[in-house]
Amino acid sequence: MTSYIKIPSHLTPSDPQGSELLARERSKATFDVNELTLALYGAEELSRFKRILKILESDPILDKSNIYYMGRTELFKYALRKDKRIIQLAATHKWNVDEFKIASRLVDMSGPYSIHQSMFLPTILGQGTEEQKRKFLNPAIRHEIIGCYAQTELGHGSNVQGLETTSTYIPETDEFEIHTPHLTAAKWWAGGLGRTANHSVVMARLITNGQDKGPHPFIVQIRDLTTHEPLPGITIGDIGPKFGFNTTDNGFMLFDHVRIPRFNMLSKFSQVTKGTGEYKKPPNEKLSYGTMVFVRSVIIFNAGLALARAATISVRYSAVRRQFVDKENPMILPNGQVVETAVLDYTMQQYRLFPVIAQAYAIYFTGEIITNLYKQYIDQSSRGDFSLLADLHASTSGLKSLTSGIAVDSIEDCRRACGGHGYSNFSGFTRFYQDYLPNTTWEGDNYILTQQTARYLFKTYREIIHSKQQSEEFSLRSNESPTIFYMLRYLSNPSQKCTVISPSDFKNPEVQLAIYGYRAAYLIARAVDQIDNHKKSWNSMLVEINRISRAHCQYILVHNFILTLQPQTSDSMNEKRRILHNSPSLKTVLTSVCNLFALHTMEKNLSEFLESGYLSPKQSEMLRVQISESLNEIRPNAVALVDAFYLPDYLLNSALGRYDGKVYETMIEWASKEPLNGITLDINPYSEKLFRNDVKAKI
Amino acid sequence: MTSYIKIPSHLTPSDPQGSELLARERSKATFDVNELTLALYGAEELSRFKRILKILESDPILDKSNIYYMGRTELFKYALRKDKRIIQLAATHKWNVDEFKIASRLVDMSGPYSIHQSMFLPTILGQGTEEQKRKFLNPAIRHEIIGCYAQTELGHGSNVQGLETTSTYIPETDEFEIHTPHLTAAKWWAGGLGRTANHSVVMARLITNGQDKGPHPFIVQIRDLTTHEPLPGITIGDIGPKFGFNTTDNGFMLFDHVRIPRFNMLSKFSQVTKGTGEYKKPPNEKLSYGTMVFVRSVIIFNAGLALARAATISVRYSAVRRQFVDKENPMILPNGQVVETAVLDYTMQQYRLFPVIAQAYAIYFTGEIITNLYKQYIDQSSRGDFSLLADLHASTSGLKSLTSGIAVDSIEDCRRACGGHGYSNFSGFTRFYQDYLPNTTWEGDNYILTQQTARYLFKTYREIIHSKQQSEEFSLRSNESPTIFYMLRYLSNPSQKCTVISPSDFKNPEVQLAIYGYRAAYLIARAVDQIDNHKKSWNSMLVEINRISRAHCQYILVHNFILTLQPQTSDSMNEKRRILHNSPSLKTVLTSVCNLFALHTMEKNLSEFLESGYLSPKQSEMLRVQISESLNEIRPNAVALVDAFYLPDYLLNSALGRYDGKVYETMIEWASKEPLNGITLDINPYSEKLFRNDVKAKI
Repeated sequence: MTSYIKIPSHLTPSDPQGSELLARERSKATFDVNELTLALYGAEELSRFKRILKILESDPILDKSNIYYMGRTELFKYALRKDKRIIQLAATHKWNVDEFKIASRLVDMSGPYSIHQSMFLPTILGQGTEEQKRKFLNPAIRHEIIGCYAQTELGHGSNVQGLETTSTYIPETDEFEIHTPHLTAAKWWAGGLGRTANHSVVMARLITNGQDKGPHPFIVQIRDLTTHEPLPGITIGDIGPKFGFNTTDNGFMLFDHVRIPRFNMLSKFSQVTKGTGEYKKPPNEKLSYGTMVFVRSVIIFNAGLALARAATISVRYSAVRRQFVDKENPMILPNGQVVETAVLDYTMQQYRLFPVIAQAYAIYFTGEIITNLYKQYIDQSSRGDFSLLADLHASTSGLKSLTSGIAVDSIEDCRRACGGHGYSNFSGFTRFYQDYLPNTTWEGDNYILTQQTARYLFKTYREIIHSKQQSEEFSLRSNESPTIFYMLRYLSNPSQKCTVISPSDFKNPEVQLAIYGYRAAYLIARAVDQIDNHKKSWNSMLVEINRISRAHCQYILVHNFILTLQPQTSDSMNEKRRILHNSPSLKTVLTSVCNLFALHTMEKNLSEFLESGYLSPKQSEMLRVQISESLNEIRPNAVALVDAFYLPDYLLNSALGRYDGKVYETMIEWASKEPLNGITLDINPYSEKLFRNDVKAKI
Repeated sequence: MTSYIKIPSHLTPSDPQGSELLARERSKATFDVNELTLALYGAEELSRFKRILKILESDPILDKSNIYYMGRTELFKYALRKDKRIIQLAATHKWNVDEFKIASRLVDMSGPYSIHQSMFLPTILGQGTEEQKRKFLNPAIRHEIIGCYAQTELGHGSNVQGLETTSTYIPETDEFEIHTPHLTAAKWWAGGLGRTANHSVVMARLITNGQDKGPHPFIVQIRDLTTHEPLPGITIGDIGPKFGFNTTDNGFMLFDHVRIPRFNMLSKFSQVTKGTGEYKKPPNEKLSYGTMVFVRSVIIFNAGLALARAATISVRYSAVRRQFVDKENPMILPNGQVVETAVLDYTMQQYRLFPVIAQAYAIYFTGEIITNLYKQYIDQSSRGDFSLLADLHASTSGLKSLTSGIAVDSIEDCRRACGGHGYSNFSGFTRFYQDYLPNTTWEGDNYILTQQTARYLFKTYREIIHSKQQSEEFSLRSNESPTIFYMLRYLSNPSQKCTVISPSDFKNPEVQLAIYGYRAAYLIARAVDQIDNHKKSWNSMLVEINRISRAHCQYILVHNFILTLQPQTSDSMNEKRRILHNSPSLKTVLTSVCNLFALHTMEKNLSEFLESGYLSPKQSEMLRVQISESLNEIRPNAVALVDAFYLPDYLLNSALGRYDGKVYETMIEWASKEPLNGITLDINPYSEKLFRNDVKAKI
């Protein structure tokens, strides 16, 4: 893009230069960054990542340097062009599904085809019969048809059972009639529906023989394959501008008695019989939970990477940005000159940013563990064993809620920690934040989801109480489930107290788990008592329920981080864990990070630990002392810890978070390209003319 | 704007309709909404507000119905046009400064002339000599020159003393030479600078006779009055797109040895003598604090209104939006039909939203009190009495930080409480949030500001300790200052305990103030001990310092709310307070609101109250019970309490928060106008063509 303003080329930032400051930070690290990167990703994934990055970085259509200046329509055009390009590149380089995902993550922009890949294809694959796959899946894979997924309605989101769109079986013609009875039944939000898709999975209430069987999935062709206009009886449009995701055409859709063949009901699990309209229900209701667990595990994993990205930008910029002179401990250049102190040296900044680094690692490791557990579940379920599902479903529900909530809050905290420049799009935070936000709402609203977790915890707790009364043995199962473990420990002595007697005792992983476990169990015990013995309504307990899910999931996060750092039998370790466990310097720095995560999270929720009486006010003071210690331990490694996530400049697209520290040079260079700089205003307020030059020629 | 999609006109939302639900809510209120509106604004301000609203609502140029579809350049054109229009209307209707401000608030969009009005004119007025006012102020008022205010630099924000731009006195020609020595010295962020202003107040380090006198303000003509091009030696541009405020041309500026006459240094307070270059420093350093207090009091006041706006949208929509059936207490229509429960009936939603209503009222009343205190200070300072300044400066610093932080967080909480639709621009939240955000950074970064508050609190505490040791008497002054009052009460018995023995005791205002006062004093006492006796560095105390400022300012907010509701001598009451105190129903509902504010804020910071040992774990359980009671008390009045703020649909510009509840009808109508709906895509991924129709004709 043109530069509209000539910036004097002889000017440089005042000393010290950002690149020197970052180099100095990197030289202070106590561990090998490349080694940690390998321990995070493994050699194979990392080399695949680098290979794909190289292709994308050098592709002119996927160049990101102009996106910050684009309005919605321009951005959408860009997204359409880049979506086409990725599909073309995937064909050229024969990328598999995982490689396609890496490319999408690096290009980092939802587009009009995103839902076709992420929802339309998997739904047919998972819920279609072999015949249906032949008819719909194969042409969809070849992009001859493009699909979307229409479930949410104008008036219904979380309550899927309340959807209003109907699909009524008509035995006379062996068809379904899809219909929108009210305005609130309009399909709404479906990605790719607004302008792109010509087919859609439509979730609609199946009505047959006058009976309402609830929502089921149907394949509906919605646009003409030649003219691309909506088919008769179907009204479709884009739902308009949003906080983010304006590169996707989220759409709305209304049906006026639209007929589709009976064949189009996705029938792997439930069917309607030709002519009689008899309904056959699915053999196992649990099957659909598996998909939810998978989607949520992806959100958890991505939350870790989003946190890493926010931390990378803000930590690097805080090493470059200097403000005031800390008189008690000034920053002195090699030539003896006293300069302003890097903001990373202020304890307040450390207190704001280092916990985000810790959250990134904590959630990354839990993401890995949950992904592996899901694989294990899939393996077992194919043999008819669903025993892992209940705990996994409860944990992923609460963890999806907790981790996406942490990520949203911390992205914004990191943005604000960049001061005024955090507000510029060039920070790399604004679109990133806006696009990340819906994670708190989709795939289960973050508040509503916590009810699922709490319901499971209450059930488990009641079972334990019951078997204790029956003198049954839970100890065996407690080896498998940390949930049962902490409940049993609590019940062994509900009035136990925390054993900490000095700040450093808080570094003991056993102590950390005991504290988190006691608090979760205490909250659960109290709530079960309220519901069972004091007949409190579920609605009146919702605030407490939300707290309980958070308490449980924080336990899980701390537990998993500790587990990751504990010695494991060598045969259970994969390549990544071996790298970690063979390197004392990695274990040392990650132990500091783990402690900071456990203790900072404790402090953020301190009242819940104090309220049970388990932690004393005196111990809470020691906790603050130990947190301060942990921040000091992290300080020399702060930049290296974010570098280790290996998030390339191409992904960050940030003037502030650049690897090379050339913050100010980039800010002014990018500013010079702002299209407004190509126009000259007529500033007389009484003149109706706005511009002095020909605008259209330039913008 | 054109509607691109024809929406079937026979469809309505499913029953019950939004308008019925809101009418039902309004009928449940226990007080007269119009009376509360009058008690908030007074009759005169309200009628002025309505008069101006009518003019703006009916002006086609100020119509807001298309802004959500505009990209940056279009938005900027709109803003330029509407800024011109407001100036024209102000001339036609002979608006005074206050009326101009009301109009700006209702139009609700910063524009290219905003800083001319809000910073350029006041700076010359406040810091210029009579001669300078004649030369610059008069033409500026007539808009013959347009100004901006350039202080922040690419490398310097909060640390004004660290600015790098220099202004060197040249005795030979009796001029100053303005210069940018480094890239980091580039002026950055100045509103209206990028494309609009032809003059600027430039803050630059005054250098005379080789001595650096620190930053001073200079008037610099920056663009040619005829061609509107930057003058020689000056490089200017817009800084590019931002998270919000894209309707303003925030700019950057570099000077290459640019000369200005000595006359252009704003010289009301300090001067440089002709020829000798002798520097005369200002007679009273305190004078500049007054302006900061004023600006911060405006931010505090606006925080209350921003909270009211967020609460209005989310509370109204939560009365219309229904989700799931609460089986234990279902919502039943007059015809006996069980329908989904309004989300406002779920305790979690109440717990999320009602505290925001309470924050809005609390901060609104403190805003009023601070504004009056500022007027009192101005009055006294004109007689040489600066005694109010120190406390006022400390309180407004901390309150600016606290209230703008609360507002930003609560706006986002309210947006998320609207579920998926909160993410649409049509919610009225997205631009609102983005434009509100900088309040946390400008006029003193919210973290840095708290150091000013804490410094004053430490000083006051040390003085009290010192006079107690000297047996001096502080009780007299304690009548005036709540700060001294709570410190003295703490010192009378540092190991006192909270007296609450049942949940309802928490409703006692004396109890509330005792709890807040003890906690603030305890934190201050502990910090002073750390600094004075354990020689902790200031930097190591920053986290604690931030906590202390928040504790103090929460005390002030609770104190002021309680004060507002307490009987006052009738001669000290203005019209608004008389309305409030003559209405038992208003006092009852506002007392519930005040309790919720005090108790919810306490719960959010509970660990600090528990840690001191002042509040016991048992009492904290009672606190939660009482909060739940307060939510029940507010429930019937929730909609009426937001209605009372009288925020018109013209301001809200929200499909969700409409007064009439026609949420779904508006969502789909506005969606049909999305310009993307005018284009038909070419979706073949292997075709380089993007569109099938002629796009330029439509968008």
